[in-house]
Amino acid sequence: MQKVIFDTDPGVDDAMALLFLHRHPDIDLIGVTTVFGNASIEKTTRNAQFLHQAWGIAAPIAKGAARAFEPSRADDHPAAVVHGEDGLGNIGVPANIDSPVDPRPAFQFIIETVRANPGEVTLVAVGRMTNLALALKADPEIAGLVKEVVVMGGAFDVNGNVTPAAEANIYGDPEAADMVFTASWKVTIFGLDVTMKTLMSSSYLVEMTAGQDRALRLLSDLSQFYIDFYRQRVGLDGMAIHDSCACVYLAAPELFDYRSGPVRVICGGLADGKTIQSPDSGRRYEGSAWDGQPSQSVAVAVQPEKVLEVLRATLTEGRQA
Amino acid sequence: MQKVIFDTDPGVDDAMALLFLHRHPDIDLIGVTTVFGNASIEKTTRNAQFLHQAWGIAAPIAKGAARAFEPSRADDHPAAVVHGEDGLGNIGVPANIDSPVDPRPAFQFIIETVRANPGEVTLVAVGRMTNLALALKADPEIAGLVKEVVVMGGAFDVNGNVTPAAEANIYGDPEAADMVFTASWKVTIFGLDVTMKTLMSSSYLVEMTAGQDRALRLLSDLSQFYIDFYRQRVGLDGMAIHDSCACVYLAAPELFDYRSGPVRVICGGLADGKTIQSPDSGRRYEGSAWDGQPSQSVAVAVQPEKVLEVLRATLTEGRQA
Repeated sequence: MQKVIFDTDPGVDDAMALLFLHRHPDIDLIGVTTVFGNASIEKTTRNAQFLHQAWGIAAPIAKGAARAFEPSRADDHPAAVVHGEDGLGNIGVPANIDSPVDPRPAFQFIIETVRANPGEVTLVAVGRMTNLALALKADPEIAGLVKEVVVMGGAFDVNGNVTPAAEANIYGDPEAADMVFTASWKVTIFGLDVTMKTLMSSSYLVEMTAGQDRALRLLSDLSQFYIDFYRQRVGLDGMAIHDSCACVYLAAPELFDYRSGPVRVICGGLADGKTIQSPDSGRRYEGSAWDGQPSQSVAVAVQPEKVLEVLRATLTEGRQA
Repeated sequence: MQKVIFDTDPGVDDAMALLFLHRHPDIDLIGVTTVFGNASIEKTTRNAQFLHQAWGIAAPIAKGAARAFEPSRADDHPAAVVHGEDGLGNIGVPANIDSPVDPRPAFQFIIETVRANPGEVTLVAVGRMTNLALALKADPEIAGLVKEVVVMGGAFDVNGNVTPAAEANIYGDPEAADMVFTASWKVTIFGLDVTMKTLMSSSYLVEMTAGQDRALRLLSDLSQFYIDFYRQRVGLDGMAIHDSCACVYLAAPELFDYRSGPVRVICGGLADGKTIQSPDSGRRYEGSAWDGQPSQSVAVAVQPEKVLEVLRATLTEGRQA
């Protein structure tokens, strides 16, 4: 069993990824930490509570950052057009959910859980990386105690989705992302290079959820707004299952190709939030800001149909009926 | 006949491109403007004079910028490792060449030549774009009088060659490049995306120049240092013929695929000198620094063997024996 803390800002594709983690038999979801992003921290935390209640998820929830790591960054979460005003496709999430939230802030929950399980915890971060950066700042030694960090974020050899340069999770907190990518732990990154190639069509979602349990029907309901966004604004009949890509990696890493090398995040200027890797196999540069930074893995190719199949099988045949 | 001003910093691959322009029957080389880059402005100008004398080129030479458009930029030309201390592969270019140089600075030569031939002049810029930016600053109206600007520079969907982010011609003067790409003239850009796929092997060069005239033997001689650089530092048996790509375009534009959209250059920070395009066919962004800028063409694919063939045929069967 892989022990996983899921750092998330639900968020429609976050919800699908959460259900995947909950239902996969080899994954032990030991915590969910929330972060602002797809909606405000109040909404993403409430959405996590809502999904826990609806899907019977027992893992503790810890509420995380409400704004970016650098206080001077604007508290900006413009994703309502993507995920709905409530962050879950405007399905009408109740304003208050009566389910518990851990008293610790997310970064403290991460630190204490990692220290209690040295070398065993994988952090799967699919929102802004603020909580992880705060944890590193408060306790740098955790870098050596985490098993792996798995990230959905960035746009390496492709355009971004917020600006031509930057992907939303990185754009929302570039300084935090740069700290996470340059820390001395193993990071595996799933950016738009692969997630925009991993599309679930609306008909696939219909077939996957038809005749299934309430959990999958809820997943289908909350995804419709997001599917409409992709149809109307991106011109695709289907939704990119960004966050699920990072989670399917835990179960089937062989479905992606990876490139190794240090990764830096551009902070400020026109390329604010752009991710750039200096591949280990590439040209040697005579002194650059990438020198001496740890090599991380960036997913550069994906087998989308097989990722969808792993996802579908886990969601529909998982341990909870 | 296409009237061409060649803005260049010879430079080994510049030399090959110059001979191509000189020998192509449909190209009328009406001026050569020099710029610092592969070597100092004194050396690149002297090298242009040397090549003119050796190859019997009559087009006037105008000496250009010695430093970047923004005075605060360091006067940095680290390319001796690529092009040799003399900028032409250390073949022993005489210190002083007794051949004329136009009294006007390059930017003034460009302005006056364009105004004398409205709508007819193509500017082929294969070094830092300082001269073109100075010309635009002094006389913005020339943007409407130039037929086309053809640039070798940038790295769009691939890593740079000076830093992981930036290609040398852009890195050497990012502000000038951004001005050139956002001016309201037609710009077609050949970056590392295509030029690093267009390699001339050492054996190809040997076969191309064996038994040929003195001009080609000189080209072979001055290329050896550059070939050694590619073998030792880049790990390739052959040299990227960067500047010739931009020139072959004039004769055979069908050998490349293009992507249309505004192009901006990152100025400052870790991505200093990075080129980023916002494709017209791509996602619509909600307000970005690319909005409202003119669409330019970026070469994104190349047929390298056919480019080499056009180059070889012109160099060996050109009008000068």
